[in-house]
Amino acid sequence: MMSMSGKFKLWVIHALLGLECIHAAEPHHDATDSGDTGAQKMKRVIEEEHEIGFIQTLLVHPTPISVQQSDYQTIEVYESDHFGKVFLLDEALQLTERDAPHYNEMLAHVPMMEYLAVQQPDEGGTINALVIGGGDGYVTSELLKYPNVVIDHVDLDKEVINVSKEHFEWSSAWEDERVNLIVGDGAAFVREQVEKKKKYHVIVQDASDPFWYDENGEKIILPSHVLYDMKHFDGIYALLEDSNGVFMFQAETYNIPSNLEEIQTWKKSLEEIGFDGVRYGSIAIPTYSTGQIGFFVAHVSNKDMVCKSDGGVCTMDLSAGLIDWTVVSSQFEKITGTTKYYHPRIHRSAFDLPFWVEEAIYDSKE
Amino acid sequence: MMSMSGKFKLWVIHALLGLECIHAAEPHHDATDSGDTGAQKMKRVIEEEHEIGFIQTLLVHPTPISVQQSDYQTIEVYESDHFGKVFLLDEALQLTERDAPHYNEMLAHVPMMEYLAVQQPDEGGTINALVIGGGDGYVTSELLKYPNVVIDHVDLDKEVINVSKEHFEWSSAWEDERVNLIVGDGAAFVREQVEKKKKYHVIVQDASDPFWYDENGEKIILPSHVLYDMKHFDGIYALLEDSNGVFMFQAETYNIPSNLEEIQTWKKSLEEIGFDGVRYGSIAIPTYSTGQIGFFVAHVSNKDMVCKSDGGVCTMDLSAGLIDWTVVSSQFEKITGTTKYYHPRIHRSAFDLPFWVEEAIYDSKE
Repeated sequence: MMSMSGKFKLWVIHALLGLECIHAAEPHHDATDSGDTGAQKMKRVIEEEHEIGFIQTLLVHPTPISVQQSDYQTIEVYESDHFGKVFLLDEALQLTERDAPHYNEMLAHVPMMEYLAVQQPDEGGTINALVIGGGDGYVTSELLKYPNVVIDHVDLDKEVINVSKEHFEWSSAWEDERVNLIVGDGAAFVREQVEKKKKYHVIVQDASDPFWYDENGEKIILPSHVLYDMKHFDGIYALLEDSNGVFMFQAETYNIPSNLEEIQTWKKSLEEIGFDGVRYGSIAIPTYSTGQIGFFVAHVSNKDMVCKSDGGVCTMDLSAGLIDWTVVSSQFEKITGTTKYYHPRIHRSAFDLPFWVEEAIYDSKE
Repeated sequence: MMSMSGKFKLWVIHALLGLECIHAAEPHHDATDSGDTGAQKMKRVIEEEHEIGFIQTLLVHPTPISVQQSDYQTIEVYESDHFGKVFLLDEALQLTERDAPHYNEMLAHVPMMEYLAVQQPDEGGTINALVIGGGDGYVTSELLKYPNVVIDHVDLDKEVINVSKEHFEWSSAWEDERVNLIVGDGAAFVREQVEKKKKYHVIVQDASDPFWYDENGEKIILPSHVLYDMKHFDGIYALLEDSNGVFMFQAETYNIPSNLEEIQTWKKSLEEIGFDGVRYGSIAIPTYSTGQIGFFVAHVSNKDMVCKSDGGVCTMDLSAGLIDWTVVSSQFEKITGTTKYYHPRIHRSAFDLPFWVEEAIYDSKE
């Protein structure tokens, strides 16, 4: 790794962590004298999407609340006027306090609700969940709103966890006795659990990007690619309960062509492995480039939750599917605490995509 | 107007036009030597949202395809690598060819479908539509996909229409004999039609922003405010058919607090006037700041399409409402041509907002 350029090295390290979502963007930030909101010069957190000629800039206060160098990366927390605390890894925006609920609530509640809609645990029974990545603790904290959940949470960088514990309220999740935190490599953990024949009801993968396009239009395959390949998805499938296991993972934006191609590939891969009801859902989130990020949710043994094509045009009722929304609403009333973004209707609606996106994902000719 | 600063004057002129949507952002663009996609230096089209410390930049080719100075504003068209042609008025991004369908199809098809879902015209009968603003012609072109529509389209700047005719395929709409193009002030036109007791079935207002926050945090009331005030909404109400008139208008983003406050105000105003089924819907669009813009749709005499509050939490089934989605799907199959963004399910889903947004809009304490 010593021979890599600084930028690429950052991404390699980043990707190895299997941490929470980052964009396929070139991140950098610097202080300038424009864009001030007052007398103080603001620092600019920049995400460049070279592939589409799109740049997003977030203004934060120049003095960081926290800067930590771990064995793997630089971990920074800044304050912003509107978006609250802003969490960066190697200068890449990971989340802001204000809109983090958009992403993290969907990653937790969609798979849990889809599990519960089909199969509710017996009295006193537990729901075994695995979280891969999500080093800020937010997805895990949302999963804990289900009283009978137990969670294995695997993440690589202990220092990310420590910084999150200090600065983000949701990181109290790890103090909950229902959480088993494993500091280690997510892909390796999956392989080990497959060997041990471990089973989970719900698996959430909150991982970094598998590739990136640089400023020269070159596609750079990043190490987190292993969290998006057939072998890993095979492992996930093996870990899920046959009766109704649910897999949820961060799946990029449809607004960037290379991302959309990957979305098509992932869908095909998941279906080849045997997953059913493989659906791409959308989350509106202002601080992720282009204001949108998506996820895949996929089921084991849920044969009817599939797209029904009609004359080349996708006419499936993705928003209804096999799911009983009355059950989801009823289960939603039982969770501990409240949500800021998630509710059963937005869960259902997340699968209603722009028409050109539905055609690309569900009617792609292979 | 001569005493105004250049920037404010641009906005005043802009707003007077009642043209298509612009953001409540400070627009400017300049050529820099970074962000190139090749050897050519790219020009930056920048939208600054001072209120939330958020900046969006789109890279376009530096040589404009067209620059025209009208009596009211500078009209520019640029080429971009990914988003196709980019249309600017006084340096503010109005649309890009790639994602313009997201916004314009929703502004046209949502009100038409909501009209048709409740009341279909008699055999050979016409649907009278009014378009206020939308000087690029896109909304009008979408409305023409309904064979029995006739349209009054009022816009101020003849030069915008001429530039659009030259550069955007959808502007062939004005050649259709079903369109009556009126070059003039939208608010005045509404007042005149009210006096003439004219009636429309569907009114679409594709207008510019009513206010703007400058870099010092000062709220600047813009002249298009008159298109968002009670008197104007009263006029719109009077122009709509009593049996089922539908009003649709551009209604900003919930991601900016001042915009969200205005959204709350507009809802209250519309309901006080007597509109029913007043609902805010969301459109995902990457080149509008924060990736989201919204609209209001409101009905005359559609008493049951209202939010039902339950213990302070909004539990209305906005996505179902009174609308018969089977009828919408059936009507959708009858339109001329195809759509890129709109389909009946995304129409329905547009009203399923983040939970905190629903609470803000539908449960706001006044």
